[in-house]
Amino acid sequence: MTQNVDLPRKHLFDMPEGLIYLDGNSLGMLPKGVGARVAETIEQEWGQSLIRAWNSAGWMDLPRLLGDRLGRLFLNAPAGSVSVGDTLSIKVYQALTAAMKMRPDRSVILSDSNNFPSDLYMAQGLIQTLGQGYRLETVPADDIESALSEDVAAVLLTEVDYRTGRRLDADRITRAVQDVGAVMIWDLAHSLGAVPVDMTANGAEFAVGCTYKYLNAGPGAPGFIYIRSDLPDGVQPALAGWMGHANPFAMDPAYEPGPAAERFRIGTPPIVQMRMLEAALDVWDGVSMQDLREASLALSETFIVEVERRCPGLVLASPRDPQRRGSQVSFRFDHGYAAMQALIANGVIGDFRAPDIMRFGFTPLYIDQADVMAAVDVLERVIVDRQWDRPEFQTRSRVT
Amino acid sequence: MTQNVDLPRKHLFDMPEGLIYLDGNSLGMLPKGVGARVAETIEQEWGQSLIRAWNSAGWMDLPRLLGDRLGRLFLNAPAGSVSVGDTLSIKVYQALTAAMKMRPDRSVILSDSNNFPSDLYMAQGLIQTLGQGYRLETVPADDIESALSEDVAAVLLTEVDYRTGRRLDADRITRAVQDVGAVMIWDLAHSLGAVPVDMTANGAEFAVGCTYKYLNAGPGAPGFIYIRSDLPDGVQPALAGWMGHANPFAMDPAYEPGPAAERFRIGTPPIVQMRMLEAALDVWDGVSMQDLREASLALSETFIVEVERRCPGLVLASPRDPQRRGSQVSFRFDHGYAAMQALIANGVIGDFRAPDIMRFGFTPLYIDQADVMAAVDVLERVIVDRQWDRPEFQTRSRVT
Repeated sequence: MTQNVDLPRKHLFDMPEGLIYLDGNSLGMLPKGVGARVAETIEQEWGQSLIRAWNSAGWMDLPRLLGDRLGRLFLNAPAGSVSVGDTLSIKVYQALTAAMKMRPDRSVILSDSNNFPSDLYMAQGLIQTLGQGYRLETVPADDIESALSEDVAAVLLTEVDYRTGRRLDADRITRAVQDVGAVMIWDLAHSLGAVPVDMTANGAEFAVGCTYKYLNAGPGAPGFIYIRSDLPDGVQPALAGWMGHANPFAMDPAYEPGPAAERFRIGTPPIVQMRMLEAALDVWDGVSMQDLREASLALSETFIVEVERRCPGLVLASPRDPQRRGSQVSFRFDHGYAAMQALIANGVIGDFRAPDIMRFGFTPLYIDQADVMAAVDVLERVIVDRQWDRPEFQTRSRVT
Repeated sequence: MTQNVDLPRKHLFDMPEGLIYLDGNSLGMLPKGVGARVAETIEQEWGQSLIRAWNSAGWMDLPRLLGDRLGRLFLNAPAGSVSVGDTLSIKVYQALTAAMKMRPDRSVILSDSNNFPSDLYMAQGLIQTLGQGYRLETVPADDIESALSEDVAAVLLTEVDYRTGRRLDADRITRAVQDVGAVMIWDLAHSLGAVPVDMTANGAEFAVGCTYKYLNAGPGAPGFIYIRSDLPDGVQPALAGWMGHANPFAMDPAYEPGPAAERFRIGTPPIVQMRMLEAALDVWDGVSMQDLREASLALSETFIVEVERRCPGLVLASPRDPQRRGSQVSFRFDHGYAAMQALIANGVIGDFRAPDIMRFGFTPLYIDQADVMAAVDVLERVIVDRQWDRPEFQTRSRVT
């Protein structure tokens, strides 16, 4: 019944033989066009044009043009409101510092105690830099609204939880945050390319994210930051790099921020990784985010039904209500680490997050219903045959 | 007489036909091994190993391993004291925030009023974030020592000036800075691969730099930060990203810094740009920095002598004393912008820095005495024939 919602885009990716990849929520697959784009960037643009390529190949404009493209494809954000660069953690710091300056009489950053650790760390680093009187307060995501007060300067939340795939009601929370006069910052790391996002409708001041997950831009692909278009004039960036200056090559000793989101550029952009993102975005041409969402939920529904039926001991850690899920499904399992190693050894790649979460990402551009059924077949054997008990699956590596 | 100091390494670079490239101080040339390394990283590591490559291809260790290699090749810095990542501007911010926390009773960042603008901007952004009572003070580089006082927490200087190529006496200045109890931060953007650097002998607390100039790692290649090895325990990074955590995958909600320079890692490293740096460093195998320095000075001496003899109107802006120069030579010329455009149109690439500086970088790995003589021949025609007066060379582009 759900077969027909598959999106026929597998042919746009280089897929390893015999592998079912359910980890595109961590590192997306390689789109076919990326290698050639990079070769051209290196051999022609860098190799032949050298320094002239900053103009002739348009390198200087990539952070803005890619930002505009993300805005159009995924964020419903106007041109000029998104800038691509650096990493998600840096973008979190930029949004947080800006928000604190916008509410100089307030002292609290409020976040989800289960937020992705790097978001919390960046907030901790900023609090320590700001000094006495400032603090980071964390509560479970469900308690955010009741923890709001007029001490809160900024609320930093990740829409889709990295462990459970739980999706927050972003529109309702943004309204509540803004009702107490605080600034809303959404981390969309697990949202872009996974669930429909509409920043214009949402109305939050800031959003940040990365591009190496569902956007398939490769390992260490750049992050992005969105700023609501009425705000930039009041925002003096804390990370005031020359590429964010109104006129970088005037070599003015005083910093003057560039227009709109351009002020969040910092140093020289990683051109090759920018070109990888550019090529990776081509696979999204003509994809409706509603179709994608429908395909994603069909995949995760099939997975949940089949795993619960065939894999005893695995307990659903994701919300059962599809509207409250992103594009991943997690199960708790006491032997989760070893079971995931066994699964990987059998050609099905998901990942593990401490303490006991087996995590499976559904990326409808290159995963279909047949893949999900095949993955559950393997998982069933791992569980029912107790493959996770074998010694070779017990040793922990640092990244899983 | 100087011919014999040329370093025979041209064969390791992909050099465009008919071009003399004197802009390697801005963006280095393409080493031949880079393209293949990148193709392997994309097609094999990412494409085939996918998420597993973080372990199997050693991605996770690249920031440390490349840092160690920079330390060994160029900085005389011990293993663990250098970390590669992000951009130079970010590394400046990390060093500055650390230095301010190391001297909590002091309020001044002191810098060169002619420092590279992004260094000054990052300091301005930090001062604004720290709030009332803190300030950035700038004086000409020659006045730094007399401007030192016990209010100064940190001194941020670029060893080799980006406009004039003037090289400071780093050892003497570091001693003077430390004598008043301030923290010394060296920006080595124009030093690494250009002049011998010895951080162990110098004794400064921090150094930062980039790798796209003399190190030829490509457009937007990562920056680096060095921290003196007795210091890390006292340093809580302001940009506290998960990759700098002691145990990133424990997903601990509280930040705990990793060992030594690893704590300056922030977000997910740009793996492809890291591999480009790795391949680019191969061309340095067996190069003695003393031989390189000798070759560099022989090139710049020839250039100065010939330009002063044959190009009327060009006034040397670089120090005449070779020991006080880096690996570039700058001339002031009223029509410098247009003259540089004319030069480029004739196949000799240097660059221009406002208001009137024509800048020429000497990169002995791929520039030899014959190139310098050929470049001066072209420059002489541009100047003597007043080619700079042609209308097509008047229009300014943003990057030159």
